[in-house]
Amino acid sequence: MTTQDAHARAENATDTAAAGKALGSHKGYLQGPRPDIRVPVRRVHLTNGKDVTLYDTSGPYTDPAIDTDVRRGLAPLRENWIVQRGDTEEYAGRELRPEDDGIKHTSPRGGLRNLDAVFPGRPRQPRRGRNGASVTQLAYAKQGEITPEMEFVALRENLSAEFVRDEIAAGRAVLPANVNHPETEPMIIGKNFLVKVNANIGNSAVTSSIEEEVEKMTWATRWGADTVMDLSTGRNIHTTREWVLRNSPVPIGTVPLYQALEKVDGKAEELSWEVYKDTVIEQCEQGVDYMTVHAGVLLRYVPLTARRKTGIVSRGGSIMAAWCLAHHKESFLYEHFSELCEILRTYDVTFSLGDGLRPGSIADANDAAQMAELDTLGELNRIAKAHDVQTMIEGPGHVPMHKIKENVDRQQEVCEEAPFYTLGPLTTDIAPAYDHITSGIGAAMIGWWGTAMLCYVTPKEHLGLPDKDDVKTGVITYKIAAHAADLAKGHPGAQQWDDALSDARFEFRWEDQFNLALDPETARAFHDETLPAEPAKTAHFCSMCGPKFCSMKISQEIREQHGATMEEVEAGMAEKSREFAAAGNRVYLPLAD
Amino acid sequence: MTTQDAHARAENATDTAAAGKALGSHKGYLQGPRPDIRVPVRRVHLTNGKDVTLYDTSGPYTDPAIDTDVRRGLAPLRENWIVQRGDTEEYAGRELRPEDDGIKHTSPRGGLRNLDAVFPGRPRQPRRGRNGASVTQLAYAKQGEITPEMEFVALRENLSAEFVRDEIAAGRAVLPANVNHPETEPMIIGKNFLVKVNANIGNSAVTSSIEEEVEKMTWATRWGADTVMDLSTGRNIHTTREWVLRNSPVPIGTVPLYQALEKVDGKAEELSWEVYKDTVIEQCEQGVDYMTVHAGVLLRYVPLTARRKTGIVSRGGSIMAAWCLAHHKESFLYEHFSELCEILRTYDVTFSLGDGLRPGSIADANDAAQMAELDTLGELNRIAKAHDVQTMIEGPGHVPMHKIKENVDRQQEVCEEAPFYTLGPLTTDIAPAYDHITSGIGAAMIGWWGTAMLCYVTPKEHLGLPDKDDVKTGVITYKIAAHAADLAKGHPGAQQWDDALSDARFEFRWEDQFNLALDPETARAFHDETLPAEPAKTAHFCSMCGPKFCSMKISQEIREQHGATMEEVEAGMAEKSREFAAAGNRVYLPLAD
Repeated sequence: MTTQDAHARAENATDTAAAGKALGSHKGYLQGPRPDIRVPVRRVHLTNGKDVTLYDTSGPYTDPAIDTDVRRGLAPLRENWIVQRGDTEEYAGRELRPEDDGIKHTSPRGGLRNLDAVFPGRPRQPRRGRNGASVTQLAYAKQGEITPEMEFVALRENLSAEFVRDEIAAGRAVLPANVNHPETEPMIIGKNFLVKVNANIGNSAVTSSIEEEVEKMTWATRWGADTVMDLSTGRNIHTTREWVLRNSPVPIGTVPLYQALEKVDGKAEELSWEVYKDTVIEQCEQGVDYMTVHAGVLLRYVPLTARRKTGIVSRGGSIMAAWCLAHHKESFLYEHFSELCEILRTYDVTFSLGDGLRPGSIADANDAAQMAELDTLGELNRIAKAHDVQTMIEGPGHVPMHKIKENVDRQQEVCEEAPFYTLGPLTTDIAPAYDHITSGIGAAMIGWWGTAMLCYVTPKEHLGLPDKDDVKTGVITYKIAAHAADLAKGHPGAQQWDDALSDARFEFRWEDQFNLALDPETARAFHDETLPAEPAKTAHFCSMCGPKFCSMKISQEIREQHGATMEEVEAGMAEKSREFAAAGNRVYLPLAD
Repeated sequence: MTTQDAHARAENATDTAAAGKALGSHKGYLQGPRPDIRVPVRRVHLTNGKDVTLYDTSGPYTDPAIDTDVRRGLAPLRENWIVQRGDTEEYAGRELRPEDDGIKHTSPRGGLRNLDAVFPGRPRQPRRGRNGASVTQLAYAKQGEITPEMEFVALRENLSAEFVRDEIAAGRAVLPANVNHPETEPMIIGKNFLVKVNANIGNSAVTSSIEEEVEKMTWATRWGADTVMDLSTGRNIHTTREWVLRNSPVPIGTVPLYQALEKVDGKAEELSWEVYKDTVIEQCEQGVDYMTVHAGVLLRYVPLTARRKTGIVSRGGSIMAAWCLAHHKESFLYEHFSELCEILRTYDVTFSLGDGLRPGSIADANDAAQMAELDTLGELNRIAKAHDVQTMIEGPGHVPMHKIKENVDRQQEVCEEAPFYTLGPLTTDIAPAYDHITSGIGAAMIGWWGTAMLCYVTPKEHLGLPDKDDVKTGVITYKIAAHAADLAKGHPGAQQWDDALSDARFEFRWEDQFNLALDPETARAFHDETLPAEPAKTAHFCSMCGPKFCSMKISQEIREQHGATMEEVEAGMAEKSREFAAAGNRVYLPLAD
């Protein structure tokens, strides 16, 4: 596919964005302490006149007042904040090369020349810290500075900006915000905040295209993804990422090693620090907000995986293991880690220290290889923090329920409470095609116990690449897990959502129940399947018990007619009994015609 | 619909049963200590010549050697065992009445006259304990007798028959097996056995028909349901139940109160012990294996629900609350509980003591009403045990994760370790249309902590009645939860299944991976979506990473070529590095044409 084709086809993604506008909620904004801090929210107007305000990750696409266009990209919300700090500079940037898009050196076709050829939107030059300065939210937080980004997330999480600053300064939270991705709406990842969800997208050599990936990104954020990782490995890898970044209201993560491997034609042993570093800078300049780096896969740990049931299942982990074996040398990622820190801090790219040796089966959970790598990630976390680089730590994988808590507890101890970012974990291996569920169970539990962000798993895990439906199912499942964790952690305000929906349910406000649902469309469609008629949407019964008897009715009557204290209620019961008999002793509504 | 129509349409259910035969496994039997004890298993023949043996709930329908016919019903597997015990007698039984099928007394249409008119299969008369004798598995276990049913489940669970007897005698497990349901393949419910799953079916006044319910039953057991509850409330309630029972290889549960309410035309206050008792006997004679009885909803507990967010959400609970309020008297179920025990023990019907005051929202979890009722269920459990009636206890409902464990711990203490049988619990209220997932999370956790059986929740919960697809999704989700719980509890042998599947995954035995999956059809279909070609089913890669690089390959090579001890492996790493270089340092297979 040519770059022109990609442009033409990517435009289709706008349809998806537009579709997002038609839901049972309205875009709203919370006004911050300065005019340019406006935090988006999803407002559900209830039929009883009340409003419920929900966290909103969907970006400008769901604001009918904003005319979005994927060819132009989103407005650079944070640009003034970045510029006003005065510690960054624009520069020419690395020259783009054909191999950045997976085109062979020898290809007769032309290739990428500059950013304008890659993306038709506003012209831009990359930006970086002046004279190698740390321009990270961690550096600012350490210095006691509350940035507009911190103000933004404080409002978003209903916590004080000083608390946000303190959590970031301590390394307990990260605010991924590359200076080259000013389109992001700031969000925070840490155990003392709402549990976040990441959705993976990305093409591979086998399937998918640019417009599909942009569409998956807007689709995933529509349903609640807090960040998106672009794990593309095939053609157009640079161009796909550019389109995704310019249109993404959420932080974008990548695994630079995947692209680096493409540049050396898939030969792991030909990887080098130079190729890797070049790729990292390429991605820093584009605006990637966090990068998975498998620097904990050390040569001496590889033999620990030899007797595992499923060996090394992380792509990054196996690439680095292959490199270490081929050269019989220590990982170049580990050896050059400080240098990598010096690069990332000039863009404010956050580390996601990868768990290359995570278990790929129940049998391998919590084994020596996994725990050895975790110790090294703890060491790297300290180095990154010393360099002012924001850092989170990735976790497993496949873990039976009784071994999950040990993962969080040990990670929190070894990594000084740095945010844990886990994939599931899957609590059994027996259900391919349902691994969103096997892992949703583990995700909810590990979220409760302290994981800050959950990487979703779709029904296609182990079987194929997710399509749009799979992305939605994965995101919804993980929003359930994250919210269940918020409830269990007692996050202030989390239960308001459940309470609002349960009130609607108890009061037979069906439309409110649908609109408050994580997925209003499907909830409404399911109700329509059995009772399609419009009157059923206001009926005081549903198809489960039918119109003849409804369990909630009597409770409702007791509550409506009796006072707040238990004494009054107790006294009222006798009266209720008399009324009940007087009213014909009927506890259900007559069947409507 | 006439009874004749029902017969004609119910025959369609055979198609479903037949379809169950075409799966990636073969019916097998474990031979017990006597010729007529043959425990069905699902045998998966792997491409590497090995066999994996899995628990099988699907009944004779998946045995190609057995010619099943829903008009004839299943063979009465346990009949000889029951007869040979010599403690039961056949008798004429209660005369059937039109209102048993929801036909009004005044209806000009005729009605049910005898069992032959209801079901065309083998003629039968009901059976009961001679002279009111206890013919329960609990009575036998207390007397030290190991029944063929106990031998059967011992083989099925891979435990000793003496252990089975002991668990039943202690009231820690139940083996639901009405003497009038000889078609059941014995199974056991208790915390020291595999966690079980119940699927609810049933028509309502709004929707559904007899043949659909029979089909849902065979369909649910096909996918792994260990028991089925028929919660029908509409027309043909007696006839539907007869068809379900005569064709069910698993124990059938009901809530007799639902049918009793139909008999008094939906007027709760017209319910009486006499109508209820008559209905219970009707269902005992048909062969219902366990009955939900909401005898713990006491008059004085009703006011405790007045300030709840969602009041009383159990149908049985609200019916009894309505009755108590109308009469301002204590529940007739509670008042006549001992008499009820005397009936149930002559058929070996197991109590499922219902939690009529379970919470219906996160806000109401673990409240005073719920816990007060639980204390009463503990009292009733002791009475039932003293009467030799097997008993399990039902549990919630809607409970946030951090409040789940308290439910099991308290139930186990108050109810002397009687089996806990919980609905979910749902860990958040915000996801109607996905409550199989919100509750699957809670189900896995509560199963780990000691719940013996999980009542499934389908995607239609709160919205409508489940269709066939919903039943399948509900069962698969709950089999995941149950198996994850078995793993976490360290049930002997549980992990073999995961290990077999992970081995297949690691060795790229795709067909084995599909056939070992909980849902082989969907796993295969998902793989086909991205890589439909037949060679892809033996390829050493998948569409996720594509053919260029696969993470499992190198681990596999290390393991294949090195010994079992870590020393050997360590030594082997250097050699591996040389081999690797000699082989061109390529870690992936070349792309197949």
